[in-house]
Amino acid sequence: MTNTEIEQLITGMAAKGRKAARKLAALPTAIKDSILLDAAKELEAQRDFIKAENKKDVDAGREKGLSLAMLDRLTLSDKVINSMIQGLHEIAALPDPVGKMDEMKRRPSGITVGRMRVPLGVIGMIYEARPNVTIDAAALCLKAGNGVLLRGGSEAIHSNLALAGLLQKVLAAHNVPAEAAQVIPVTDRYGINVMLAQEQFIDVIIPRGGEGLIRFVTENSKIPVLKHYKGVCHMYVDESGDVATGIRLAMNGKTQRPGVCNALEGMLIHKSIAPCFLPAAAKELMAAGVELRGCEQSRAIVPEIVPAQDSDWGTEFLELKMIVKVVDDMDEAIRYIEQYGSQHTEVIVTNSYANSQRFLREVDASAVMINASSRFNDGGQFGLGAEIGISTTKLHAYGPMGLEELTTRKFVVYGAGEIRQ
Amino acid sequence: MTNTEIEQLITGMAAKGRKAARKLAALPTAIKDSILLDAAKELEAQRDFIKAENKKDVDAGREKGLSLAMLDRLTLSDKVINSMIQGLHEIAALPDPVGKMDEMKRRPSGITVGRMRVPLGVIGMIYEARPNVTIDAAALCLKAGNGVLLRGGSEAIHSNLALAGLLQKVLAAHNVPAEAAQVIPVTDRYGINVMLAQEQFIDVIIPRGGEGLIRFVTENSKIPVLKHYKGVCHMYVDESGDVATGIRLAMNGKTQRPGVCNALEGMLIHKSIAPCFLPAAAKELMAAGVELRGCEQSRAIVPEIVPAQDSDWGTEFLELKMIVKVVDDMDEAIRYIEQYGSQHTEVIVTNSYANSQRFLREVDASAVMINASSRFNDGGQFGLGAEIGISTTKLHAYGPMGLEELTTRKFVVYGAGEIRQ
Repeated sequence: MTNTEIEQLITGMAAKGRKAARKLAALPTAIKDSILLDAAKELEAQRDFIKAENKKDVDAGREKGLSLAMLDRLTLSDKVINSMIQGLHEIAALPDPVGKMDEMKRRPSGITVGRMRVPLGVIGMIYEARPNVTIDAAALCLKAGNGVLLRGGSEAIHSNLALAGLLQKVLAAHNVPAEAAQVIPVTDRYGINVMLAQEQFIDVIIPRGGEGLIRFVTENSKIPVLKHYKGVCHMYVDESGDVATGIRLAMNGKTQRPGVCNALEGMLIHKSIAPCFLPAAAKELMAAGVELRGCEQSRAIVPEIVPAQDSDWGTEFLELKMIVKVVDDMDEAIRYIEQYGSQHTEVIVTNSYANSQRFLREVDASAVMINASSRFNDGGQFGLGAEIGISTTKLHAYGPMGLEELTTRKFVVYGAGEIRQ
Repeated sequence: MTNTEIEQLITGMAAKGRKAARKLAALPTAIKDSILLDAAKELEAQRDFIKAENKKDVDAGREKGLSLAMLDRLTLSDKVINSMIQGLHEIAALPDPVGKMDEMKRRPSGITVGRMRVPLGVIGMIYEARPNVTIDAAALCLKAGNGVLLRGGSEAIHSNLALAGLLQKVLAAHNVPAEAAQVIPVTDRYGINVMLAQEQFIDVIIPRGGEGLIRFVTENSKIPVLKHYKGVCHMYVDESGDVATGIRLAMNGKTQRPGVCNALEGMLIHKSIAPCFLPAAAKELMAAGVELRGCEQSRAIVPEIVPAQDSDWGTEFLELKMIVKVVDDMDEAIRYIEQYGSQHTEVIVTNSYANSQRFLREVDASAVMINASSRFNDGGQFGLGAEIGISTTKLHAYGPMGLEELTTRKFVVYGAGEIRQ
């Protein structure tokens, strides 16, 4: 395809998506839910076809020499298909955010004014290898009354197009324009640029993938982007912290699933508890295969800690490595988090009421926790039902984004002929 | 100043603003309020100085041949200074949004999770001739715990710098870094470009002024922009609408203050009520000096209506002109609003329950009203206390933006050592 053809194709898809989204916005909850449940049935019915299309992607990926981890993410196994089906059921069961009214109040002028939740419009999703995102993200967007334009990676194109065909069949069966959920069939990078210029038709872009993809999207988008680059999460053990709790949270935060954004990448330890906490914590973490990289003070207590390089501070390891730093006080811990954190998740281990409240107030991160594992920063764990992503920027959404974050609120006014004086 | 010097100056100011904002974020409400009340006192004390500085701007403006309307907006009369003082008192009296926690709930894992309102960080304001915005906007930003970087028009530079000096004196007296509120002292356009590239230090840009300024800001900003371009507001009179109500709302919407964004620019009238409504409405509007420009059907009923040009549909007149269109039904009215509205304010005049509910749900605008004047779309009228602007885009804020829209919410977790299974 020439660039002009790509422009025409994607602009046309975005425009049709906008039009379809207007229909979706006014759709009753019951119809949206039956679309989701029918999509679940259709996934079951088309299981063999979806797996066959997916096999084309996996075979091509193997030939191209994709890593085992990449191939794993790419594969739509029965287990992954089952979880997509379950996800559709779960999203259908969630309360519909659209139409919810609150803050209704009578004003001195006589009017009654309040706010009504309405869909955002059209969501543009840009993601990499996981084809299950096609169903998960589309389902959340549709439930919130939004059209969705999906642009997955080239490795997953057969899978994504098969899944889009399935969704569109179900939409059409419910008299909803099929363009409410579309997968862009071209996957070269120029297509992303074209997509990011459709500010007339797309309301928000949600990228999911590596930091490189997200930076590319942010730098080139004319449309607002909801994103997080990375998760550099810390746990601060203050002088009153419970040692056993600190060790348990460190182990869970670092070792339960080291490759995810809410895994711990560092421990900050108050100097007065370090001699007690560090030897026990280091022993357990090291026994689990964690490499600790620390400051001089930490190495004076536990010599097995590797000296930290300058580049280690603020690094998202995503593997069994972790920095350790002994700090003089909470001020130093908060300053360190300001400098090296990624506004994702920050944890304090403390038994001091005053310290817990101060940490909660002053630390700037999408989730701030007292005596709980950083691994809880997740839409499901927080009770949002499902998440479409996580935001570490503050505008519109900060933290995991669920159905509500895919909507906005307009003002509604009930009058009886009132005029402004 | 060379471009390099401007870059250094503005980057330095933005960086210091970010640092000062961290202090502000943790400031107790009582201190923020006494800063605002002391600023009010200081305005009274410095009244003559402020007026003298403002006179320099007004004299220069007169020499440059600014229009009377521009000179009027530029002038800090005693009345305007009084309203700034009153505004400071009102903002001090508003509840502090920062620290408010809600949606606290216990999760099956044992953690308690909720959301806490926190400041956005640093707000960049870009505005034109009105120097009173310097105080009004800074006061709202400070109350919400945000730093503010203000860039006013060149015509008002003496006034703006004098007002910034006043604010900084008060901030310093309360041990808050003066850089919490800064006015950029250079006013050439390149400075705006530099400001719009400070995404590292500025969290959101709020432009206030003409459509040209706002388009320039939106197209050049790397920082999210909260804005509205224009207000093309309509009133739809359905077949069940009360004629007297329709006329009252049309008069109020068009004539009470025609130059503002929530003034009415058009009337859509159901064909079956048009013969009854239009003659009476046209008579009253024309008697008030309003020029009506209408479709053929409207002219068949009231021949004095001027034929509308194609360019009239969707125009923001901001003066005593208004389009009139007879429509077949509500579908046509809603389609017209979709095509020509600006997602600002849309009004229905009706006595039909079903039509009122459908209009409320389906019309996409920051405020949708039943039997009330479009002129009510205003932060004060809606009970937000004061507004820093209005947004007609949906991300983060849709409609008038008050203190709450200058904040965001982070997740907070109270745990007792829980880990993720």
